[in-house]
Amino acid sequence: MLGKLTDWNDTIVALATPQGVGAIGVVRVSGLEAIHIVNSLFPSKDLVAQPSHTLHVGLLKQDKVAIDQVVVSLYKSPASYTGEDVVEISSHGSPFILEKIIAAIAAKGARLAKPGEFTQRAFLNGKLDLAQAEAVADLIISNTEASRKTALQNIRGGFSQVLKELRDQLLSFSALIELELDFSQEDVEFADRKQFYELIEKAKQITQDLLSSFSLGNVIKNGVSVAIIGKPNAGKSTLLNTLLNENRAIVSEIAGTTRDTIEEVLNIDGILFRLIDTAGIRHSKGDVIEDIGMSRAKQNAEQADIIIHLTDITSEDDDTIDWLDNFKDNVIEVANKFDSAWNDYINKKGNVVDLADGIYISAKENVGIDALKKILYEKVVDGTVNTESTIVTNARHYEALRLVNEAVEDILNGLNNNIPADLIALDIRRCLHYLGEITGEITNEDQLDYIFSKFCIGK
Amino acid sequence: MLGKLTDWNDTIVALATPQGVGAIGVVRVSGLEAIHIVNSLFPSKDLVAQPSHTLHVGLLKQDKVAIDQVVVSLYKSPASYTGEDVVEISSHGSPFILEKIIAAIAAKGARLAKPGEFTQRAFLNGKLDLAQAEAVADLIISNTEASRKTALQNIRGGFSQVLKELRDQLLSFSALIELELDFSQEDVEFADRKQFYELIEKAKQITQDLLSSFSLGNVIKNGVSVAIIGKPNAGKSTLLNTLLNENRAIVSEIAGTTRDTIEEVLNIDGILFRLIDTAGIRHSKGDVIEDIGMSRAKQNAEQADIIIHLTDITSEDDDTIDWLDNFKDNVIEVANKFDSAWNDYINKKGNVVDLADGIYISAKENVGIDALKKILYEKVVDGTVNTESTIVTNARHYEALRLVNEAVEDILNGLNNNIPADLIALDIRRCLHYLGEITGEITNEDQLDYIFSKFCIGK
Repeated sequence: MLGKLTDWNDTIVALATPQGVGAIGVVRVSGLEAIHIVNSLFPSKDLVAQPSHTLHVGLLKQDKVAIDQVVVSLYKSPASYTGEDVVEISSHGSPFILEKIIAAIAAKGARLAKPGEFTQRAFLNGKLDLAQAEAVADLIISNTEASRKTALQNIRGGFSQVLKELRDQLLSFSALIELELDFSQEDVEFADRKQFYELIEKAKQITQDLLSSFSLGNVIKNGVSVAIIGKPNAGKSTLLNTLLNENRAIVSEIAGTTRDTIEEVLNIDGILFRLIDTAGIRHSKGDVIEDIGMSRAKQNAEQADIIIHLTDITSEDDDTIDWLDNFKDNVIEVANKFDSAWNDYINKKGNVVDLADGIYISAKENVGIDALKKILYEKVVDGTVNTESTIVTNARHYEALRLVNEAVEDILNGLNNNIPADLIALDIRRCLHYLGEITGEITNEDQLDYIFSKFCIGK
Repeated sequence: MLGKLTDWNDTIVALATPQGVGAIGVVRVSGLEAIHIVNSLFPSKDLVAQPSHTLHVGLLKQDKVAIDQVVVSLYKSPASYTGEDVVEISSHGSPFILEKIIAAIAAKGARLAKPGEFTQRAFLNGKLDLAQAEAVADLIISNTEASRKTALQNIRGGFSQVLKELRDQLLSFSALIELELDFSQEDVEFADRKQFYELIEKAKQITQDLLSSFSLGNVIKNGVSVAIIGKPNAGKSTLLNTLLNENRAIVSEIAGTTRDTIEEVLNIDGILFRLIDTAGIRHSKGDVIEDIGMSRAKQNAEQADIIIHLTDITSEDDDTIDWLDNFKDNVIEVANKFDSAWNDYINKKGNVVDLADGIYISAKENVGIDALKKILYEKVVDGTVNTESTIVTNARHYEALRLVNEAVEDILNGLNNNIPADLIALDIRRCLHYLGEITGEITNEDQLDYIFSKFCIGK
């Protein structure tokens, strides 16, 4: 497959650090000419003669005019991120200077890198398999402890390793069964059917475990949407604020997280809950506006993974919302204003913990909020997230695993029904194909380009 | 002076790259414990045993849990930016991961760096003088070729060198004159008055040249504001667009320049012209609004370094604006719509180039725009900007130079009037003091803190 890809002999350059002004910025160059090109702009030392993994301070000059004082990092092939010669140039972090450095390198024959092209080259040079390469992108955008750990685990090959072992074992059986086909007249069995059956049973278990990890993987990677639904004055805004204020200090410690994006995001033990701001819905006595409010609340509920149905225990009004029944499994019943009604409530109903599927809280007095968070967490995560285990977070992997699983079921059925080896061989090939697609042993240029186009430039 | 500063024995840490998501991010650590701290988080190799200026790939771990795969750059004292041991950690560019790395290093005893603290340490350790350190901040925010070159020139010591030589020469004369004071009873002259006179004349020339370079330096560093003033329908918006469109492609190539900031900035040969958008002023038949429009135009004119007075040669109306006379020296007369009136104009007035202090253009047809730019450039820059020469861009330096210059004038007067050596000695000391303030030989902790507080964090 590597041979099919063209245009991989040139040298690429890109800004590797975020846009904007900083103390330093880094320009990354990779390819056959990387060291020669930078060397021609770096008169103070002969970089070609320097060993790999060394740092060199000097002036970067174009046409004898100094661009900046820089530090050059040398990584010689194959001991680099891409497997090619790589040079990183650390300069003062002025976007103007960084652009000038990139232009100077481009003028010497390097090409501006496409998004993800450094990682794509790492994949093509066998430094990472495809699933690992995809985890690099996940790691860069990771914003919780769980998403960081899962992505790092996948970069280090946890996921790929499982699939690779399975594929290797299947491959050897496949070879034996194909051999049987060559001797089909003679009715011999090279492949031990019992061992093969056990392998396929194991394959089924592995793919099903991975498939079922995806809903958690998806939660880890993308978070969970939560709609807070309730009648006017149930205390939706107060609950939203209480939930967020608790965490704002922690979340805002994360560098670069803008206020816009944290405002409605709640991190509970590494899982991001995105709170849909239904508090913004205005209700009034007028029927039309009330209708709009309710229809928007309904929309929010439809889009949410979890619905908090907030009721006001001090209110005499009926606070059931009939259409909530449609989402029953996702609803958490939360009875608010527990503080003001404490005495009344005890007197009237006796026991405060008799709310089925729910909890009593006081958003205003911050009572029951931790328990509510625990319920939210347990609604999506069964037990603690074990980020050491292998979790599928990528929709492409999920889809391929689903097809692997289908093929595995077909093989099992075939074995159970003693269907001919040539038909089983076809199912095995299908299974191998989809396994190979995940780690990139089987792929095509368009698919690769698509996968890497979702990366950021410079990676 | 170095001895007076406290709290410089601890180890500091900060993010060195811009905020936000990127392919990579860099955390910088400097101080006595820098290598030990990072080493304790980097189990794959003993960093203490590694030579300076080397790169090391491995997992950064906190409490045996991997944070990220990173590259560690080692710079051992004194061969580092700060002069102390410095470690830079390149990780995947997730703000979450970078924050985690900084927290892990802080947990091992490093302190979060204050703005400019790395450069401040470089200054305190004698790696840079104060003027050079200040040029680092200028370089980071440089956004044109001229500002980049001037700042780099100053980091490399162009400016400091001139002042240092002057100060050294003055110092030796000062010593001789102070010696004369010890022997004042005997009426001897150790300092050759003729040579001294020549030195002071030279000092006067140098400080005056530097002082007069400041207006250009200011233009290079901060740009020039330009207001386009004219009656309704003179074509202000069209001119603004034509001026900007010409350059937008070039300006927008600069990485990280947001559309917001480039929209009204015009780069002519490395000088930034900030176009004040008077095109936004709405005029109408109603007197009140017309008045507001005119008063805003007047405000813009008052704030601008240069005013383009745009007139419409096809209009029969009088387009003089009486209050423009107040700004006469700064006004460029520009007659627009030259295209549509070409024939009429030739017929009526004969010669098209008879506009005093101005130019005929067609903003719509892009005629005369290059010539207008040339006039704008020449209005602020006398000849070409020679960025190889030493230019003062810093208001603090300007102020100190002004005081040096005053002292120099006093010495010259003293010499001319044969005033006693002890009075001249006072003036020389004053002169030396202000020279030393520029390069930081004479300074105090508060002043340093103030200067470096204007830096970005991580530098």
